[in-house]
Amino acid sequence: MYLNIYKIGGNVIDDPQKLETFLDMFCHAREKKILVHGGGKLASELCQQLGIKVQMEEGRRITDSMTLRVAVMVYAGWINKNLVSSLISRGCLALGLSGADGRCIITRKRDRGPVDFGYVGDMDKNSVDAVFIQRLLHHGLVPVFSPITCSSSGQLLNTNADTIVSALALAFRSIYTVRLQYVFDRDGVCCPGSDSPLPLLSRTQYEKLRNQGIVSDGMIPKIENALKALEQGVEEVYIGNTCIQL
Amino acid sequence: MYLNIYKIGGNVIDDPQKLETFLDMFCHAREKKILVHGGGKLASELCQQLGIKVQMEEGRRITDSMTLRVAVMVYAGWINKNLVSSLISRGCLALGLSGADGRCIITRKRDRGPVDFGYVGDMDKNSVDAVFIQRLLHHGLVPVFSPITCSSSGQLLNTNADTIVSALALAFRSIYTVRLQYVFDRDGVCCPGSDSPLPLLSRTQYEKLRNQGIVSDGMIPKIENALKALEQGVEEVYIGNTCIQL
Repeated sequence: MYLNIYKIGGNVIDDPQKLETFLDMFCHAREKKILVHGGGKLASELCQQLGIKVQMEEGRRITDSMTLRVAVMVYAGWINKNLVSSLISRGCLALGLSGADGRCIITRKRDRGPVDFGYVGDMDKNSVDAVFIQRLLHHGLVPVFSPITCSSSGQLLNTNADTIVSALALAFRSIYTVRLQYVFDRDGVCCPGSDSPLPLLSRTQYEKLRNQGIVSDGMIPKIENALKALEQGVEEVYIGNTCIQL
Repeated sequence: MYLNIYKIGGNVIDDPQKLETFLDMFCHAREKKILVHGGGKLASELCQQLGIKVQMEEGRRITDSMTLRVAVMVYAGWINKNLVSSLISRGCLALGLSGADGRCIITRKRDRGPVDFGYVGDMDKNSVDAVFIQRLLHHGLVPVFSPITCSSSGQLLNTNADTIVSALALAFRSIYTVRLQYVFDRDGVCCPGSDSPLPLLSRTQYEKLRNQGIVSDGMIPKIENALKALEQGVEEVYIGNTCIQL
């Protein structure tokens, strides 16, 4: 049996038309499905309005206690509940979740190394309660995950949505045939001078494109995660601007 | 079989020590249980910080689109996820819900009468999906409801927590023996000159106390709701500062 895990980020969430199109397609997918969403510009806007300084280190945001509060409010509150209610109105039985809910994703606060990233949760192979989530799927529910998790001592933690996607995929690869779909605002991975995305991308091909500087910046971790997932038993990974219906 | 439905409001949520005491007691209750929470001062503080004007009419808050955003962020986001993670750390399998999640509480936006209350949801006898919530209880989950619901067209709506409590009680009275517990910062309903709360309050006694002005203000709807619940088949109602363990 197939399980489709979809990921959307800010570039879809912040664009009402792209979001509507995505939600319509998502609802039409017949197989079991999970949605994982990231943030959007609202969290940064709210931080700015509240005078919370954005602190970056090595290109990554530091989550202090005030930033955590904004992240929980915006991700687990506003964005998650809006996605759920939009899906509900389309007849899709969505259930919004943070990792705390039902204890379904328990993470560990990142150790204070040379850089203290603050309230950030890291996952390990035991983080996901696949049995609990499978039970929800079995009852026809569609889990919608915000990128907020929880430590075993009850501390809410900001967690990378792509990492949650990978961990879910790995937790379910022995139960379902897992298909990952990273939905964003581009058609896919294109070669220079071409508007058509590559139909298939191998690791060798990816490494060549990366060395040529064609694949760069934010696409690197996305593709790395995708290839890693495939190598670890995930059946298919799509990167593009639509949901694949099979 | 018993179902305990607990309600806490701002006076418990905003006081860390009272909240800890409540959560400890709540976790120890062995029977099936549901928690419904209201708001707290954070929503008003956030409105103030964001320059959102509090508009009151007939003693009730008007929920415009910006106030709704704050309500969803604070109630369904920050407060709900903090309660859930605190319960999880105590070994209680809490699941945070808005009415949108699993389509479990569908309300109707209040009609624009002489006063337009904005994004406020009113409940009717079909609002609660008791089958869905019963399934969660059956699996050992403890639903934690924020006072945010959803219309059938997917509009998030601010909803009175006491009204949600009553609606849940009525929806479950034919399935479980329902016991309502309104937990707040007072010992209960006391007679003048006495610090001991009344062990039992009948409608006749309540009406006498109300006519004497002893029961007044915010206590009136609380007791009215409690008596109405009892008259409609709810087994027991407690009003006080502790959870009753039976």
